[in-house]
Amino acid sequence: MAERAGQAEKTTPAESRAPERERGMSRRRLLGTAGAVGAAGLVVGGAGGALAAEAARETPAELAGVGAGTVPFHGKHQAGIADPAQAHGHLLAFDLAPGADRRAAAALLRRWSATAAELMAGEAPKGDDTGIALDAGPSSLTVTFGFGRTFFDRTGLVSKRPVALEPLPVFTADALDAKRGEGDLWVQVGADDPLVSFHALRVLQKQAGDAARPRWQMNGFNRTPGATAKPMTGRNLMGQIDGTNNPKPADPDFAARVFVPDDSGDWMAGGSYAVVRRIRMLLDSWDHLSLERQEKVIGRRKSDGAPLSGGTETTPVDLEKFGADGSLAIAGDAHVRVAAPESNRGAAMLRRAFNFHDGYRDDGAPDAGLLFVAWQADPRRGFVPVQRKLDRGDGLSRFLSHESSGLYAVPGGCAPGEYVGQRLLEG
Amino acid sequence: MAERAGQAEKTTPAESRAPERERGMSRRRLLGTAGAVGAAGLVVGGAGGALAAEAARETPAELAGVGAGTVPFHGKHQAGIADPAQAHGHLLAFDLAPGADRRAAAALLRRWSATAAELMAGEAPKGDDTGIALDAGPSSLTVTFGFGRTFFDRTGLVSKRPVALEPLPVFTADALDAKRGEGDLWVQVGADDPLVSFHALRVLQKQAGDAARPRWQMNGFNRTPGATAKPMTGRNLMGQIDGTNNPKPADPDFAARVFVPDDSGDWMAGGSYAVVRRIRMLLDSWDHLSLERQEKVIGRRKSDGAPLSGGTETTPVDLEKFGADGSLAIAGDAHVRVAAPESNRGAAMLRRAFNFHDGYRDDGAPDAGLLFVAWQADPRRGFVPVQRKLDRGDGLSRFLSHESSGLYAVPGGCAPGEYVGQRLLEG
Repeated sequence: MAERAGQAEKTTPAESRAPERERGMSRRRLLGTAGAVGAAGLVVGGAGGALAAEAARETPAELAGVGAGTVPFHGKHQAGIADPAQAHGHLLAFDLAPGADRRAAAALLRRWSATAAELMAGEAPKGDDTGIALDAGPSSLTVTFGFGRTFFDRTGLVSKRPVALEPLPVFTADALDAKRGEGDLWVQVGADDPLVSFHALRVLQKQAGDAARPRWQMNGFNRTPGATAKPMTGRNLMGQIDGTNNPKPADPDFAARVFVPDDSGDWMAGGSYAVVRRIRMLLDSWDHLSLERQEKVIGRRKSDGAPLSGGTETTPVDLEKFGADGSLAIAGDAHVRVAAPESNRGAAMLRRAFNFHDGYRDDGAPDAGLLFVAWQADPRRGFVPVQRKLDRGDGLSRFLSHESSGLYAVPGGCAPGEYVGQRLLEG
Repeated sequence: MAERAGQAEKTTPAESRAPERERGMSRRRLLGTAGAVGAAGLVVGGAGGALAAEAARETPAELAGVGAGTVPFHGKHQAGIADPAQAHGHLLAFDLAPGADRRAAAALLRRWSATAAELMAGEAPKGDDTGIALDAGPSSLTVTFGFGRTFFDRTGLVSKRPVALEPLPVFTADALDAKRGEGDLWVQVGADDPLVSFHALRVLQKQAGDAARPRWQMNGFNRTPGATAKPMTGRNLMGQIDGTNNPKPADPDFAARVFVPDDSGDWMAGGSYAVVRRIRMLLDSWDHLSLERQEKVIGRRKSDGAPLSGGTETTPVDLEKFGADGSLAIAGDAHVRVAAPESNRGAAMLRRAFNFHDGYRDDGAPDAGLLFVAWQADPRRGFVPVQRKLDRGDGLSRFLSHESSGLYAVPGGCAPGEYVGQRLLEG
């Protein structure tokens, strides 16, 4: 299979979403490295049949802004993992329809893969199109596919179910709604334009046809590219800078933490495991805390994300430092202490989340928080030990409610002509 | 009261959301015309107390992208009407709490107006802040306040209730949920960054305190600035270019159509009336139509919005033109024909809508469509006659479900030191 270019290329989408004065350069670099895919990205929007023919005449000669961002679909890993989270995300799970078998699932993954490749390149999806994304560029669209535990039962593939896909333990803070969690198939869509992302979601949902039915669907968001003067770590709806300690693609152990090793020899080589949780924030309670109390709960300054042990946002957290009053600078139950790899035998995951806000609950509280998506080579050495620790000792946990949960085996990427999951479904 | 600068300035926000290569110029022009407000816009994000003091040190020296867009709060008209719709919008209605009287309502509008002015200038809201908007610029934030019919009963101001605020007629296509419509107070928030708009919504909702309680709240979106190569009329979730025939601020009759005349002599001078409807699109039925059928239903080409009578998007629709086969080029029940001012004795309104997508309904259909917001000097010469006509003869109406409705009296803008609605509440 084709090797997608390495870290250098994978960071390009991040750069293409940087403030505009840096974006022209990034766009050129993208075209230089991504070749035909980048060029195809200039044929924006897209629509089927007669609409596509007309649209081609109207295609803008050049995109320079948010629309120009292009992430390649084909490669060693799927997109939507190591590239930065976009401004808009949709998470969606499907259950296979009664009677849909391994063959039907394979046909669906083949359809979805072909369409995702077209959409991410800014091309028209084959067949009739809704036209919703016309005029806009691909806007860093990514589509990612995964398999839930139940998929293997329903397709007669239990013998190939990875042991890493064992059910997550029950945590004391969980208040899970199974109807909004789990599912046979999981799809993650992200883009920097909300009509581009909705378009992709709609096309993929319609292509499921009779083979699979939506089980749950959630919408999320992050900062719009260019809203800050320079690229910055995003904030969550508690106002906190969130993601500073995330593994970086340039880290020497990034691939080992996030992706299943090439030499694993099974169909998941190059893949990753996604833990997906709707975590509602109890914002009314949180906002009642003083700034000082909030910062103690997190262990970082709210203004700039610097650890309370000193320095700037990117200064490593010093868990041993004591303040002038003789107490720990980072409290014993501070979130950054309990979540730190040092506190969890090195366990770490790549969090790539979206904020969500679905209005108000009947009790008057905002129905808002984090669509937590965490990536790791093995959840038993990533999410599970960290969440066990957080569940017991994190001062932040009393301001959170975990409302849904899913764990998905996300296979490696595919080469042109192949489809995601082919090594499982035809292996 | 202060006169906000006229059309030339009001178009600035549109330009500041134009593709990036045009944005630097617009930003300078904005600073040139908006003076202190524009300069304050550079002090971005904002937070209360200690957080604000720290944030000031971290303030980026210059914003050049989406974040830099600034719309003045003070002026003859409220913001969020004649300026272009942003990428993110929140619509929110409140009911006054039991016991809250005219004095409490006045205090709330005073708080809200002061906070909206701060947030729109990119300053910190007074008092504790959540920090959600820190780092980002004002991102063309606007906040708009209006009064529903019931507000006047609850505040003893029935004698001042405008006759134009009479209940809208019942239309045959209506399937209205009163719990998601109407309301004593209406707030519209829009910004090009979703965290900036959520932040404003959250601050305003918290400031309602004991005086008013949320009745309903909806979230919507439009294209992200820069997703297209040049600024274009937006598309809706049917894929159709939507808003071509909207009155333009440069039109000689724009103010007369949209705003209550200065010489009306009452508290609504300079104000406008907003009709707000959640219009769900029956997308599964719509998508089953061929492209040709869709275009006949609308009366425009989907690819570029050109009327079926010929020309380009901006060519006036020729309702009298016949095709080669002897039939009308624009069908008798085409949406553009039935909605045209020529078909409604000149009645027109300014539509400034957001798309919405709230996942899937229990029946499997997408819960998506248009948060329709229409502005006019008098709904009896705007929305009402047009919707009466559409209700009877529009081929599009069988693909739409009107699920909620509200009509709000939106007063004129205010000068620094005043608040929106002061002439009503203290008149």
